[in-house]
Amino acid sequence: MNVARAASPPGAALPGAIRRILDCYEGESAATRRNLVRLLSHGRLGGSGRLLILPVDQGVEHGPARSFAINPAAYDPHYHFQLAIDAGFSAFAAPLGILSAGTDTFAGQIPTILKLNAANSLAVAHDQAVVAGVDDAVRLDCAAVGFTLYPGSDAFVDQAEELRLVARDARAAGLPLLVWSYPRGGMLSKTGETALDVVAYAAHLAVEMGAHIVKVKLPSEHIEQEAARDVYAGGNWSDPAVRVRHVVEAAFAGRRLVLFSGGASRDTQSLLGDARAIREGGGSGSIVGRNSFQRPRADALAMLGEIVRIYAAANSTRSTPATRN
Amino acid sequence: MNVARAASPPGAALPGAIRRILDCYEGESAATRRNLVRLLSHGRLGGSGRLLILPVDQGVEHGPARSFAINPAAYDPHYHFQLAIDAGFSAFAAPLGILSAGTDTFAGQIPTILKLNAANSLAVAHDQAVVAGVDDAVRLDCAAVGFTLYPGSDAFVDQAEELRLVARDARAAGLPLLVWSYPRGGMLSKTGETALDVVAYAAHLAVEMGAHIVKVKLPSEHIEQEAARDVYAGGNWSDPAVRVRHVVEAAFAGRRLVLFSGGASRDTQSLLGDARAIREGGGSGSIVGRNSFQRPRADALAMLGEIVRIYAAANSTRSTPATRN
Amino acid sequence: MNVARAASPPGAALPGAIRRILDCYEGESAATRRNLVRLLSHGRLGGSGRLLILPVDQGVEHGPARSFAINPAAYDPHYHFQLAIDAGFSAFAAPLGILSAGTDTFAGQIPTILKLNAANSLAVAHDQAVVAGVDDAVRLDCAAVGFTLYPGSDAFVDQAEELRLVARDARAAGLPLLVWSYPRGGMLSKTGETALDVVAYAAHLAVEMGAHIVKVKLPSEHIEQEAARDVYAGGNWSDPAVRVRHVVEAAFAGRRLVLFSGGASRDTQSLLGDARAIREGGGSGSIVGRNSFQRPRADALAMLGEIVRIYAAANSTRSTPATRN
Amino acid sequence: MNVARAASPPGAALPGAIRRILDCYEGESAATRRNLVRLLSHGRLGGSGRLLILPVDQGVEHGPARSFAINPAAYDPHYHFQLAIDAGFSAFAAPLGILSAGTDTFAGQIPTILKLNAANSLAVAHDQAVVAGVDDAVRLDCAAVGFTLYPGSDAFVDQAEELRLVARDARAAGLPLLVWSYPRGGMLSKTGETALDVVAYAAHLAVEMGAHIVKVKLPSEHIEQEAARDVYAGGNWSDPAVRVRHVVEAAFAGRRLVLFSGGASRDTQSLLGDARAIREGGGSGSIVGRNSFQRPRADALAMLGEIVRIYAAANSTRSTPATRN
Amino acid sequence: MNVARAASPPGAALPGAIRRILDCYEGESAATRRNLVRLLSHGRLGGSGRLLILPVDQGVEHGPARSFAINPAAYDPHYHFQLAIDAGFSAFAAPLGILSAGTDTFAGQIPTILKLNAANSLAVAHDQAVVAGVDDAVRLDCAAVGFTLYPGSDAFVDQAEELRLVARDARAAGLPLLVWSYPRGGMLSKTGETALDVVAYAAHLAVEMGAHIVKVKLPSEHIEQEAARDVYAGGNWSDPAVRVRHVVEAAFAGRRLVLFSGGASRDTQSLLGDARAIREGGGSGSIVGRNSFQRPRADALAMLGEIVRIYAAANSTRSTPATRN
Repeated sequence: MNVARAASPPGAALPGAIRRILDCYEGESAATRRNLVRLLSHGRLGGSGRLLILPVDQGVEHGPARSFAINPAAYDPHYHFQLAIDAGFSAFAAPLGILSAGTDTFAGQIPTILKLNAANSLAVAHDQAVVAGVDDAVRLDCAAVGFTLYPGSDAFVDQAEELRLVARDARAAGLPLLVWSYPRGGMLSKTGETALDVVAYAAHLAVEMGAHIVKVKLPSEHIEQEAARDVYAGGNWSDPAVRVRHVVEAAFAGRRLVLFSGGASRDTQSLLGDARAIREGGGSGSIVGRNSFQRPRADALAMLGEIVRIYAAANSTRSTPATRN
Repeated sequence: MNVARAASPPGAALPGAIRRILDCYEGESAATRRNLVRLLSHGRLGGSGRLLILPVDQGVEHGPARSFAINPAAYDPHYHFQLAIDAGFSAFAAPLGILSAGTDTFAGQIPTILKLNAANSLAVAHDQAVVAGVDDAVRLDCAAVGFTLYPGSDAFVDQAEELRLVARDARAAGLPLLVWSYPRGGMLSKTGETALDVVAYAAHLAVEMGAHIVKVKLPSEHIEQEAARDVYAGGNWSDPAVRVRHVVEAAFAGRRLVLFSGGASRDTQSLLGDARAIREGGGSGSIVGRNSFQRPRADALAMLGEIVRIYAAANSTRSTPATRN
Repeated sequence: MNVARAASPPGAALPGAIRRILDCYEGESAATRRNLVRLLSHGRLGGSGRLLILPVDQGVEHGPARSFAINPAAYDPHYHFQLAIDAGFSAFAAPLGILSAGTDTFAGQIPTILKLNAANSLAVAHDQAVVAGVDDAVRLDCAAVGFTLYPGSDAFVDQAEELRLVARDARAAGLPLLVWSYPRGGMLSKTGETALDVVAYAAHLAVEMGAHIVKVKLPSEHIEQEAARDVYAGGNWSDPAVRVRHVVEAAFAGRRLVLFSGGASRDTQSLLGDARAIREGGGSGSIVGRNSFQRPRADALAMLGEIVRIYAAANSTRSTPATRN
Repeated sequence: MNVARAASPPGAALPGAIRRILDCYEGESAATRRNLVRLLSHGRLGGSGRLLILPVDQGVEHGPARSFAINPAAYDPHYHFQLAIDAGFSAFAAPLGILSAGTDTFAGQIPTILKLNAANSLAVAHDQAVVAGVDDAVRLDCAAVGFTLYPGSDAFVDQAEELRLVARDARAAGLPLLVWSYPRGGMLSKTGETALDVVAYAAHLAVEMGAHIVKVKLPSEHIEQEAARDVYAGGNWSDPAVRVRHVVEAAFAGRRLVLFSGGASRDTQSLLGDARAIREGGGSGSIVGRNSFQRPRADALAMLGEIVRIYAAANSTRSTPATRN
Repeated sequence: MNVARAASPPGAALPGAIRRILDCYEGESAATRRNLVRLLSHGRLGGSGRLLILPVDQGVEHGPARSFAINPAAYDPHYHFQLAIDAGFSAFAAPLGILSAGTDTFAGQIPTILKLNAANSLAVAHDQAVVAGVDDAVRLDCAAVGFTLYPGSDAFVDQAEELRLVARDARAAGLPLLVWSYPRGGMLSKTGETALDVVAYAAHLAVEMGAHIVKVKLPSEHIEQEAARDVYAGGNWSDPAVRVRHVVEAAFAGRRLVLFSGGASRDTQSLLGDARAIREGGGSGSIVGRNSFQRPRADALAMLGEIVRIYAAANSTRSTPATRN
């Protein structure tokens, strides 16, 4: 673990925020807990209990030109390692190829998360191919592994069974499991993919299946499932922080780290607004990909600095197992 | 095994009711028999030969809000562990995520049953993904594993072959196998899913495939299969206790523990009526999920206390291998 | 092996009928041959070279009520063990659940055959789920394993490949393989399932795939396959014994044991007529399930006694490798 | 190896024809080469570099009556072993059941080839079930294993991947691999299955996938593939020996043994004409099944004697790597 | 490694071009790096950082006659080994059968690459059967393994998961992985298969999935994906060298070797023009198959000599990680 930038010096007692989070991960091995600490200690949010993660799988998902032509330096995997280090991210998440391409140069400088499955936009099917394994993550000295689930899709049963094997291997290797839980397909409308009920359900499924950290999209006010309409009726869901809090509740009432993303490229003010809602709703942080590397490096560093300041502000008022006492 | 609440002190001879049940489980290992004893000894029905089990897989099956919004404390997995302990349940059954979230805090306080497969209501397909394994159950110190079968569905052949592997692993680990046998799909009408002939058939399939304990829904008077109509003609099936007895007969004439549930939320009097019918028909007990945690904790404890009193009443008049002598 | 009822005392030379059969099983291990001897030595036909087998898989195939309601004592697995012992059957064949339920009580009293796959009538598909393994048969001290094939069905290729694995495991464990070869599906008409050409073909496929014993239905005079019509033209197939002899020829000219059944419940005279035809045609014996346990125990014992007398009568005139010298 | 009938006495140097063939099998283990020698040394063509093989899988492929009723002695597997020995065949190829039925009686008297997969004419699908493994071939002391491919069919990709595993096991066991390469299905017309371009392609695919010996049908003059028409235009393909030579070229220019068959029953003069064309075209020999055992034994021995005389005549004028110097 | 023809004598320091390339392959084992050096050191381009590879899988892909009838000597696998040696290729890539057929004769004379999967034009499906494994490559002393991907096809998910296993085995064996990335099927038009955006995407997918070397077709100016049109708008893509450079960028900005081919038979001037564009665009070399062996040997040697001279000319002006300093 590179603790050079961590908020607390090596050997010091764990910050209270990290200790409270660790206490929620019952039954985990020392190695899995150490890797959770590694993620929670690194970068400018180190020690705060929040995470800020740089994901770079857009090349696979949307193709290289659509991802990097706007900022051609980003064709080089080294660009992203350096950006993650310089902006003070907690970790850098990417597929096998990108992480391999910098594993010697950046060894020990930034925790990495290996994304094990991947979709691409040349394909028709709503599925993700499993293209790397936990053994690769161990070889590349990653701090966690990532896996994408599509709740609602026809591929879900197969994905769930793949995830079980991944979770088993990850447990044996002491690597936490970060699940991207993205509802789609089946009976879901396009709008339904970010509906409040559906996003909360997706977060719940991920933690039931053993995810240590779950990543979802910020939910809208829309309620998709007919059967769930009564349950949400009467609530006031217009405040995004309230919606964040609902999703965090759905993830074992705050016993699991929940990260949010805003999706496609957006203006800086929207991004900062998102971060405030996540912080206020008790979310555990942000995943910021395209909004980081699809703008000039200086702009990105400035924007990310503001996000860090938002999360580093006085603690939110949330009260979950991980924030009590 | 936590025997603190068991009816008989440690070291005492097994109560006769447990001894008679154990004698029906021929060819089982000492470890499997010990875990059956563990389930039959715990809680307020400990030693009576009856079981009362709290299942919490509704978050996965129906989504978190539909399951827990009515009683928000129930979003927290710890709520259910504590409810199971305080109400004197025999055991607590749940998926991987929930059991993991309390494995340290509640170690040794309540026998747990890990549900290995799970369906969800975002999906279209009538199938259950296998999302945990017997190795997880061993790691979490469970007393049994649970598996859901859908007799009649297109997924049945695959499920049956998955079950075979689960049964093999469970046998090696000394863990009894509890099968939720829920007919659906294929040629079955919606009404047919709880038809008397179909429920009896479902119970029989489960025990033929190696289930130590089978859980079915309380059957209606309806007969679904054309080919079975003659066999049931002339019988008087209006008494639910008679229907329970028929299902128990179908499960090797009482040589296997058979549990019943009533399904969706219902009023307390119906629940108590169900329990009386199960007791009189020679059923082995109840599984009470939503009716336990979708009401205020005090109400739930009161209602569960009444169910316990019903089962603890004078033994039924049933005469099966497990109740003779 | 329980040789208490065998025709020859322990230590005596093998009866000639058994010796001639064993000589046909070339290349088999000592353990497989010993288990063939175990089957051929037990019960009232012990030592005669004939087999009489009690199969009880109707609960799985047709449901418990359709199978046992007519004789409710038969809901209890122990009933069938005792019937097989008392009627002098050669062996008792059943699925995992039933055999498990009596494995302690009846240890060493009757050779058992574990049926590894099973279909059920709730399902739509023409397939059999593999629900037990050779390891289960070893654990339950069975004398053989049973497997059902559906030649002609879409599931055949998968079943054949499953059978290969079963045969490999059975060989390693020294357990003979008894194949129920039941044509159905595909291009076959319902009548064609028992057509003479089809039944002979089904028996041939089973022995080509490694079956030590094959079980088919008694064939009718009907010829199903257009391409086979010329070959059968001109023959006189009206005598059921002639049809039996043809099927025995198709099973390597008598080098493999071939058992026959008559199917659904029938009157006693028809059953005895079947047995005479099987004996005269050189068949190796009968499998009698529903006709045994769907009548009162006393009636069943009387009827089975008559079948035994038929088989024990002077040897037939057949001349196959197993009956020569 | 039974060398009693081999052209060269044990201990003598290998005949030049065998030596030249062995030199083409680069990188093969000593055991695989020894088994090739075993096949090339046995029977009346032993030492000539030619092979004459008796295949008996018609019982599986077409049913027992269509295969054997015309010559009922052939229902008995021993008939075929003895015919292969007495007629001086190089080897006897059959499925698991037949080879098992004579493995003790005929041990060491004739090299055997185990056919690992098989189709049957009750089934609708164009597929072959893998019903035996290389471990069976080792147990039965076979000299080679056989596998059928259907180039062009939907099952080809699966078959090719099964073949890979078979080839791996066979290599480890030192057993040569004989591939029956029979195009069918997909875009192919019935006539196209024996078209010159298609048969040459089928032979090429087999050797590219690791076959040591390939067996195809004698090709017709028809050209099936539109894209191949130009390549064949202008050639004179009316002489069957020229077509044989083309197929041999397609199998690595004579570096692999290529066997031919004529298909269904035919008159003796046609069969002898085929053998002459195979010899003149540089083919490695014939596979003669139905034409051997679907006629009286004396007739078959006479006809096979003539085929042997044709192959034993002065060497053809072919010039391939295996026939040069 | 045969270094007889390498640009640098054994024991000498690595040429700078090779050293710079090796530095891009972070985290690879010593064995994998040695095999990369083996490829980069052999033949007339040895030491230059460029590769010229002879692939011979057309017999499988298009059939033997369409591939070799125009130059019949090419039916013999030895022809291609000798051509690769004499023309100074870097390596010879072929399926299992061809490489096996020369493994003794040409041992140590030319690095070989085993193609593990293969399609054929008899089949309808857009899929490749995996017909060889990394174990075969080790046995044949190959310097690398090759695998074909079809991005966009329905088979892609399965291929990607097969590739993962191949990559794992190759890594363990120290063999670099060369991926042929050929988009087809799904939403792609025929023209789209060589569209600039699609080829760049295909190259990117291959390197993300762990390819050490990627082989694509020279892209056209066409843009296929609607979603990518804006990104390419305004660029001038008429120069093929500019298109090559774009694809090289997409493969981690030059950190991975990218090879190009021109497809079907073409005239010599076009081939040389392609080579110039590849060199100027920073591509790593050419794969030249049909254009090598579908012309007389003397013509082929002359043409290949000119390609070598083009690559050996003064270094291009490209500036990628592998060419800097």
